[in-house]
Amino acid sequence: MKIMLSHGGGGEEMNSLINETIFKIFDNEILSQSNDSAILNLNSKCAFSTDSFVVTPIFFNGGDIGKIAACGTINDLAMVGAKAKYLSCSLIIEEGLEIDELKQILTSLAEICKNDGVKVVCGDTKVVPRGKCDKIFINTSGIGEIICDNVELKSLRPKAKVLLSGDIGRHGGVILASREEFELSSALKSDCKSLNSVVLELVKNGIKPLCMRDATRGGLSAVLNEWSKFSNLDILVFEEKIKVSDEVTGICELFGFEPYELANEGTFVLAVSEEDAPLALKILKEFDQNASEIGEILDSKNSRVIIENAYKSRRFLEPPKGELLPRIC
Amino acid sequence: MKIMLSHGGGGEEMNSLINETIFKIFDNEILSQSNDSAILNLNSKCAFSTDSFVVTPIFFNGGDIGKIAACGTINDLAMVGAKAKYLSCSLIIEEGLEIDELKQILTSLAEICKNDGVKVVCGDTKVVPRGKCDKIFINTSGIGEIICDNVELKSLRPKAKVLLSGDIGRHGGVILASREEFELSSALKSDCKSLNSVVLELVKNGIKPLCMRDATRGGLSAVLNEWSKFSNLDILVFEEKIKVSDEVTGICELFGFEPYELANEGTFVLAVSEEDAPLALKILKEFDQNASEIGEILDSKNSRVIIENAYKSRRFLEPPKGELLPRIC
Repeated sequence: MKIMLSHGGGGEEMNSLINETIFKIFDNEILSQSNDSAILNLNSKCAFSTDSFVVTPIFFNGGDIGKIAACGTINDLAMVGAKAKYLSCSLIIEEGLEIDELKQILTSLAEICKNDGVKVVCGDTKVVPRGKCDKIFINTSGIGEIICDNVELKSLRPKAKVLLSGDIGRHGGVILASREEFELSSALKSDCKSLNSVVLELVKNGIKPLCMRDATRGGLSAVLNEWSKFSNLDILVFEEKIKVSDEVTGICELFGFEPYELANEGTFVLAVSEEDAPLALKILKEFDQNASEIGEILDSKNSRVIIENAYKSRRFLEPPKGELLPRIC
Repeated sequence: MKIMLSHGGGGEEMNSLINETIFKIFDNEILSQSNDSAILNLNSKCAFSTDSFVVTPIFFNGGDIGKIAACGTINDLAMVGAKAKYLSCSLIIEEGLEIDELKQILTSLAEICKNDGVKVVCGDTKVVPRGKCDKIFINTSGIGEIICDNVELKSLRPKAKVLLSGDIGRHGGVILASREEFELSSALKSDCKSLNSVVLELVKNGIKPLCMRDATRGGLSAVLNEWSKFSNLDILVFEEKIKVSDEVTGICELFGFEPYELANEGTFVLAVSEEDAPLALKILKEFDQNASEIGEILDSKNSRVIIENAYKSRRFLEPPKGELLPRIC
């Protein structure tokens, strides 16, 4: 069975899609109240974030658009020291999408939420005629409770250590390869995952992150350049500390990309004090062996990111420019 | 200047679009922190809502997709007795959209927010290649503070009066006519507007709404049928009390639509106790002369909506079915 325009029309067909498919997948008592808005009891200090997902293909090695839609927003909340509590889920569906595909996507989204104790409490469903979108776009917005204060750009400071939670470029590599119908070794999977547990573990162990950012569009390079630009400080990183899988290296050589600019969907950059760095790294490594301390924030104020290779030769890591890879997330 | 794929790539072009265009229009101190999520101080009891907007045409008589994106979510919050405080704004833009059009749309969105004291505190910008969406889709999600408790479907009860805040079908009529390139008299404008002030005024005057719903997709008919279905109660409304402009009546006759099923974007249905009804109607009329008490909730439990015409003849008002009008909002 396929999605028809009437599934978005506000009439009986839409109600039956919502009640019999969507509500069942996201089953919770707030959603089933069916009011125009969800009523929530919140802590006074909350984080709020939004993301629209337009990734193509909608199913990829290591995830799908539903998984990425849950992880993306949960991660944006985690990156400011918040534990995600509630998500909205708003769908723009192209007429003709298989309802089974929709179910699979929403089930992925629901599974991530369930694992992290997050409830999908409100939503919206629009259907557009064939050719007016591409299969499905999903917006999730999320509310999280702050569990650690002042994790923000403003907190970046000289001498802070820069840690990276895993190897880079896997999500970008998978999407790029799938577009080019490139035969991939099954070893390369998107890193798409929720960062909720690792952030909780850091905070539980007394780590006080200065700033965190998941390295999505624009990759590691975009994060580091944003940090140096916002803080006016220089950041020094060491090429050999930044892990890149052989598959990603191969794809980068083939297509002329830099791994530093490839998107990630479950890998983040963390700035911590010198004192916090060893324990933070130990915790990161429990979640991903490829975690690494990749560099530090310098005293100098030129807003540049400097990368040093194994031969001690240094260059600037420029911010990404140009088209990169459209519809990566 | 037009939107290019690079404006969504996560690199320098995206940063410049966000910092130099979007942040300037939505100018506020929370947004300019540029963190992955906005940090908010909230009341403990909040409402949370989301809507994606795909309306076509993006500019119509009485509004545009930016105005509707702000009003839609502010109204969904108002309908549960919440005063909107914070909005997210997530854009999916088709490569090639004129940046001036984008500015105009975001300015409309920002103006509604400014009038209602709402801040746009987080957002997201995706660009998809030509032909992969249609000009621009906007998601807004919103958080509001509850100013009146228990405004919900569960509160519907026998003998409650049903009030309607204005004449119906204007938004649907405008969109329908614009699609058919039908020459409209300038008298017909979309009813697109924020319902924030009228709801504040009702609450300030001690009205205790039982349930409220803006009559968007599926129109008045969808709201009344949803109410009767959820409560199992019958609802009786009087045809002559439901105001329909001559222009909307004409369009309905021409295209074979029922005005009860046409969408509205700033008109709502309100159930109140018999005691509250006179004052509530007086307040509604201060905002729109066409406001009217259109009927009441009955004791009988058949989940039906009954409409009586001027000759006392009664029929069921069936829930909308079929395609209706796609991309109305």
